[in-house]
Amino acid sequence: MRARLLPVLAGLCVLGCRPDRPTTGDQSAVRSVIERQKEAWNRGDIDGFMEGYHRRPDIIFTSAGNIRRGWDETIDAYRKRYVSGGAMGHLEFTDVELQPVGADGMVALGHWELTETPEAGGGVFSLVFARLGGRWGIVHDHSSKAAEPTP
Amino acid sequence: MRARLLPVLAGLCVLGCRPDRPTTGDQSAVRSVIERQKEAWNRGDIDGFMEGYHRRPDIIFTSAGNIRRGWDETIDAYRKRYVSGGAMGHLEFTDVELQPVGADGMVALGHWELTETPEAGGGVFSLVFARLGGRWGIVHDHSSKAAEPTP
Repeated sequence: MRARLLPVLAGLCVLGCRPDRPTTGDQSAVRSVIERQKEAWNRGDIDGFMEGYHRRPDIIFTSAGNIRRGWDETIDAYRKRYVSGGAMGHLEFTDVELQPVGADGMVALGHWELTETPEAGGGVFSLVFARLGGRWGIVHDHSSKAAEPTP
Repeated sequence: MRARLLPVLAGLCVLGCRPDRPTTGDQSAVRSVIERQKEAWNRGDIDGFMEGYHRRPDIIFTSAGNIRRGWDETIDAYRKRYVSGGAMGHLEFTDVELQPVGADGMVALGHWELTETPEAGGGVFSLVFARLGGRWGIVHDHSSKAAEPTP
């Protein structure tokens, strides 16, 4: 009986020992996505910025009561709004913290501030990351502006 | 050899057959949390409303550039703002849709509208749900107001 149970337990452990929350390696992967997005934005590279999002039609961007769906629609909207890379201004993220959502999800919460552009402003972002096909990317982005401009 | 492999495969299946995304039952559970929150709000029941959130110090509420942390802090803030149940007004959620985040997470996106109170307004909410201890509850709430009041 014991001889039969051992392989079962081994089989359980292979999967059962999978962490039930993201590992520190996962957290580094997510932080690195956010850092690369900021760098891409600041060199006027919309394509590089959009690499942080999963390339899917069901991703969601929401802000100030508006909802946009889809990777293709979003990159098109950015390209129309920022015809020249210079107009994108300078983007900074601060106080980024990560919250686990099961083993394959995380929310990144932080402050954003955009300067050197007519679109300047600042506020809070919630980026929901999911591990899909082994890769961490954003599936849902809710960014809001501070009610009062930061001093 | 085959006799030894069978229990291993059985062991793998027990865990391996677990769905990699929330089931329709999970979706119903989440929708029901949201529905109960709305009903609780509309009868002036802050405690009932707060049952939709996991009772943890690390849950996040963010809106208009502000961040609040913790279940206890949030229920205290609600109690101070709405001294009488009547002042809470009438809350409606519309167009609620669910997005999976791994097997144990979901984002509920929808519109909120609060009427019959000086705090009236409307906008979009993103509620990040996690399954913790077998129960679906909100761990992160990002609600934003529409830039212009809805007509």
